Amino acid sequence: MEEIKATEKFNSHLQKLILEINEHLDIWLPKIDEDKCSTLHKSCRYSVLAGGKRIRAALAVLTGRMYRADDDALMRLGCAIELIHTFSLIHDDLPAMDDDDFRRGKPANHKVFGEGMAILAGDSLLTLAFSWLSSLCNYNVSCEKTLAIVREVTEASGHKGMIGGQVLDLEAEKTKPEPEMLERIHLMKTGALLKAPIRCAAILAGAPAEELETLSSFANKIGLLFQVKDDILDVEGNTEVLGKTTGADARMQKSTYPVLLGLDGAKSLAGRLSNEAKELLRHLQADSTELAQMVDLIYARNN
Amino acid sequence: MEEIKATEKFNSHLQKLILEINEHLDIWLPKIDEDKCSTLHKSCRYSVLAGGKRIRAALAVLTGRMYRADDDALMRLGCAIELIHTFSLIHDDLPAMDDDDFRRGKPANHKVFGEGMAILAGDSLLTLAFSWLSSLCNYNVSCEKTLAIVREVTEASGHKGMIGGQVLDLEAEKTKPEPEMLERIHLMKTGALLKAPIRCAAILAGAPAEELETLSSFANKIGLLFQVKDDILDVEGNTEVLGKTTGADARMQKSTYPVLLGLDGAKSLAGRLSNEAKELLRHLQADSTELAQMVDLIYARNN
Repeated sequence: MEEIKATEKFNSHLQKLILEINEHLDIWLPKIDEDKCSTLHKSCRYSVLAGGKRIRAALAVLTGRMYRADDDALMRLGCAIELIHTFSLIHDDLPAMDDDDFRRGKPANHKVFGEGMAILAGDSLLTLAFSWLSSLCNYNVSCEKTLAIVREVTEASGHKGMIGGQVLDLEAEKTKPEPEMLERIHLMKTGALLKAPIRCAAILAGAPAEELETLSSFANKIGLLFQVKDDILDVEGNTEVLGKTTGADARMQKSTYPVLLGLDGAKSLAGRLSNEAKELLRHLQADSTELAQMVDLIYARNN
Repeated sequence: MEEIKATEKFNSHLQKLILEINEHLDIWLPKIDEDKCSTLHKSCRYSVLAGGKRIRAALAVLTGRMYRADDDALMRLGCAIELIHTFSLIHDDLPAMDDDDFRRGKPANHKVFGEGMAILAGDSLLTLAFSWLSSLCNYNVSCEKTLAIVREVTEASGHKGMIGGQVLDLEAEKTKPEPEMLERIHLMKTGALLKAPIRCAAILAGAPAEELETLSSFANKIGLLFQVKDDILDVEGNTEVLGKTTGADARMQKSTYPVLLGLDGAKSLAGRLSNEAKELLRHLQADSTELAQMVDLIYARNN
């Protein structure tokens, strides 16, 4: 009973945080009539403000608050990473990539604005993210920390992280990767950009090196957990709740955890990862109650 | 006679500099067997090392040397901007954008590696550029200056600069812009990324504010000059020397300076811009001989 109450309290707390994140994205994104690039701004706003779970921004804010970092700076950091996440979704959905017509319950960016504009909107969001990150020093963050954060995010997004993972994923469609390779792909493609907000928030907050180390291992666990859940939801999720078509992996004959381990195997892996993630949190000096609740939420998510 | 000798001397000096730039790009780009993303690295190296005039990197190095900035730092800055330039070419050539099959005398990136990989290679180069820029502080550049440079480049590349210009250009295909609008498009699409190396090198070198101001006006002139020459070459250039198909603008019914002003009008505009650019250089305290020679070279270029 106590536990249910705590979960409910956290959920409403998180909903409020998501609203704040959406408000900041809305305020900070270029307005539609700004400097005449109105179609570009429409296209960017369409995808960024289409909903989304804001897990990355929430992880940044919740992690940074553990070490009493400045809330405005954390919000800026989290929102910048949401831009990079959205950029990757817009490009991934293109016909030359995953060829998805729907995203977050709405037509994909290229279905509304055309492929050319979708490519440019993605490019623009990636660039804007680095602009936001490099402006962290205007939020009482030192230049040294700001630069360390910019570097973390370039590593997480680039060829060693998200984009590299997407390349391996594109190429794996032809081969059928082994479980080890699949884990590598996911740690890069999804994990890197879930790890970045956690690590960057800890850097921003000046968390001790041992805490940063533990948080990195924690981030790896939830990166994989997130992907295993994604694969499971693609098999048994509800298209309407998910906001994207289910069964896409099977149709594309993608190598997924349910394919490699069976649906039950994938579910038990999800449970194990969730426990390991929470176990790691117990090693932290800071109060990690909310991060643990985030793990429960990712484990239980149905969209 | 003296003048011809000086031009020859500068040309051989510039050729040497271009070789150095190419060597650094080759060394700094991820190797093909690195971390298994070999197709991505092949695709990136293919386009970055395909030749190119290296005007942006050369402008960075020549500008910074005027104020005795560190050569390695200038090289890093210039090469990062060349990555962004190459990213923009790869994405511009895609079928959904300008649909060009040739670039720098070779098949366009997407013709060799496919559209999906071309999109990812562009994304990866843009990200890598910000990684290289944010590492300037490892080259004896202060964190403050490094961040100022990252911010300059995000502005020059993003919706207020190159990417915004590309959007206006995409949209102008439907309308037929007036000369003022055409100038605006070019100042954003081409000018911004020619201005960035000049301004960033001056910032890196700690040039006085008045010099930075004059250099910005100078950069605007050569940005436009570059584009006017581009339009002229598309009419009367040689496909083989240019390394891309001529007459593409006319076929696309693009609004260009020769269309708006006639070929003679465009040529006299190029002459005027070249003189105005060199006139601005005379206001500088630093020795701008080499930048003036760059102007002559851009004015006389046939590729």
